[in-house]
Amino acid sequence: MVHQHVLDRVFASLADPTRRGILIRLGDGPATIGELAEPTGMSLTGMKKHVRVLEDAGLVVTEKVGRTRQCRLGVAPLDEAMAWISFHQRLWGRRLDGLDAYLTLQPGSKGQDS
Amino acid sequence: MVHQHVLDRVFASLADPTRRGILIRLGDGPATIGELAEPTGMSLTGMKKHVRVLEDAGLVVTEKVGRTRQCRLGVAPLDEAMAWISFHQRLWGRRLDGLDAYLTLQPGSKGQDS
Repeated sequence: MVHQHVLDRVFASLADPTRRGILIRLGDGPATIGELAEPTGMSLTGMKKHVRVLEDAGLVVTEKVGRTRQCRLGVAPLDEAMAWISFHQRLWGRRLDGLDAYLTLQPGSKGQDS
Repeated sequence: MVHQHVLDRVFASLADPTRRGILIRLGDGPATIGELAEPTGMSLTGMKKHVRVLEDAGLVVTEKVGRTRQCRLGVAPLDEAMAWISFHQRLWGRRLDGLDAYLTLQPGSKGQDS
């Protein structure tokens, strides 16, 4: 079963290069907000906002450790997003293949003219 | 090479259930704005806005045919979006597998305690 609101949040989260960068960085291991912000030159407040969006989508999990907030990947919803794209892409691929084959067989079609 | 602005637009386009619905519908074949709007109960103006977002992302191609605008799938950028998710997911998967194996081997780890 597809959870539309999960897909909404996951795709919206991925629609920003900074947030995609955070996910890539966390693929190397957990990091604090400060460690995520430092290489980007972004303020802690700005970085916190991006992390919050990823957290709301379930793509990132955060935990207070002493005075810092540790962030790590929570990848499960990404499966759902990929499954959605993959499923429809295969479906469309088959239909487009079928259309190609059909057009190639039509007299005067693009397939025969070219 | 990953085109960040393409990924931004594709993911933002997919972050809405109406727009995902349009892509699914167009998987069955081309449709006019009116045909897309009708089953949703949405106004033509509202549907046009969604189609424009998909068009800007390259996910939909439209063409003026007589007095109507015909819409069809333009699937290429979806490959890029899936490639991005797929690549990082595999990368993270391997790292998480490695972490699991590592934790299982640690004395007193969750892997051994459970």
